[in-house]
Amino acid sequence: MYRTHIEPRVSETDGVGHINNTTIPIWLEAGRNPIFQLFTPDHSFQNWKMIIIKMNVDYLSQIYYGSGVEIRTWVKRIGNSSLELYEEIYQNERLCAKGHALYVHFNLQKQKSEPIPDPIRKELENHLYHII
Amino acid sequence: MYRTHIEPRVSETDGVGHINNTTIPIWLEAGRNPIFQLFTPDHSFQNWKMIIIKMNVDYLSQIYYGSGVEIRTWVKRIGNSSLELYEEIYQNERLCAKGHALYVHFNLQKQKSEPIPDPIRKELENHLYHII
Amino acid sequence: MYRTHIEPRVSETDGVGHINNTTIPIWLEAGRNPIFQLFTPDHSFQNWKMIIIKMNVDYLSQIYYGSGVEIRTWVKRIGNSSLELYEEIYQNERLCAKGHALYVHFNLQKQKSEPIPDPIRKELENHLYHII
Amino acid sequence: MYRTHIEPRVSETDGVGHINNTTIPIWLEAGRNPIFQLFTPDHSFQNWKMIIIKMNVDYLSQIYYGSGVEIRTWVKRIGNSSLELYEEIYQNERLCAKGHALYVHFNLQKQKSEPIPDPIRKELENHLYHII
Repeated sequence: MYRTHIEPRVSETDGVGHINNTTIPIWLEAGRNPIFQLFTPDHSFQNWKMIIIKMNVDYLSQIYYGSGVEIRTWVKRIGNSSLELYEEIYQNERLCAKGHALYVHFNLQKQKSEPIPDPIRKELENHLYHII
Repeated sequence: MYRTHIEPRVSETDGVGHINNTTIPIWLEAGRNPIFQLFTPDHSFQNWKMIIIKMNVDYLSQIYYGSGVEIRTWVKRIGNSSLELYEEIYQNERLCAKGHALYVHFNLQKQKSEPIPDPIRKELENHLYHII
Repeated sequence: MYRTHIEPRVSETDGVGHINNTTIPIWLEAGRNPIFQLFTPDHSFQNWKMIIIKMNVDYLSQIYYGSGVEIRTWVKRIGNSSLELYEEIYQNERLCAKGHALYVHFNLQKQKSEPIPDPIRKELENHLYHII
Repeated sequence: MYRTHIEPRVSETDGVGHINNTTIPIWLEAGRNPIFQLFTPDHSFQNWKMIIIKMNVDYLSQIYYGSGVEIRTWVKRIGNSSLELYEEIYQNERLCAKGHALYVHFNLQKQKSEPIPDPIRKELENHLYHII
């Protein structure tokens, strides 16, 4: 599991008084930084490899300004060229949101998907989600 | 169907060169303004009624800076206190993203869900999604 | 003067109940779209020309969700390679925010500033700010 | 000086390939969290006290995705009810952006400014900016 700490910002709340729902996908993407780095170690957007295909979010509990949150990111399934992630957001040890994201390993120059290389696959397998 | 025109902003793109995937939920929420207004005609956050329960997005085609997009918002299903929306985003007449959002009609003061009032229900029925 | 209409989004408010102050620079940049188009008519980021050097904002009055705003963008000064803009944001005919932004006409490939071409200069002169 | 570490997000870049200029005010506001906490220790927006009056940013050097940044926040001047901050953003020990923000200590219920209380004033004085 990858863990990412995020400190909520005033600009991420909304008039209702909690973190706005559109902030959640932004935080979940932030939690994928270590995975993006596996595919593009130099962080160059010319060599960007991860294209999102779909995602979903379940909003379980309000998230408040004033207390840090933790993003937990697991690998759910590694396909030939696709990668499914499962993610959870905790605040004060309460599960507040969860979701899935499906990515494809894509070559922007050739405009086609490519198999996920074996060394990356091995590293991703260290972060597989297992139901306990 | 509710239609909302949005002009993409430079700040909504990312280094890969297209509109960032996290911008899509922001635009989809913007497309729900006419529905929020039905439930809270004075736009006051103290009387806010619509709480999001879950949502999903399918990313079908890249969206570019420099050309307007249209959000199309339909009512998919009206439950007792819940409301499911179906939404599509078009750029240059191409379907680029689609998704669902599930809301509950919620009383923040009483902290409980409430039935969707009949006059609002009737108005929402004018925007039901029908497969042609 | 360039005029841009913007419909405030729930995600642009904050817990205090108004449009968050960090939304203002985002809207002001959105108001510069017609100027960006003058310098990069094909909207390609490879040919991007306008690099921001500094900006300021005066917050004069709260902006509310539920009512459209208008961004008014003037050219304040055209230097050899620099361009100073003056911008105002109105809601319900009330001036709510104003600010300046200084850009330089920059060649990203050569990594140096370049004179603003005469045809663009002429077009910009149509939008000069004059104290009445 | 208050120090805040921020890990840049893909969604905070733009098509030109760097962190978008509108992200900077968002990060600077994030750097003010410890100051907001002084004025509103329970983080409640009903008791929010800090209203921004004006701000400016100088963009000195591009900021890149892939490397952490540090926000440094100083108190520049403490007035009767006003508070001026000076802020810098560093990436890889390079000063990339700097700016000022002017706040007023405001009572939202009474809709009027109020003197900054002495205990807060004393704490703020520990973070005064001194030219070395």
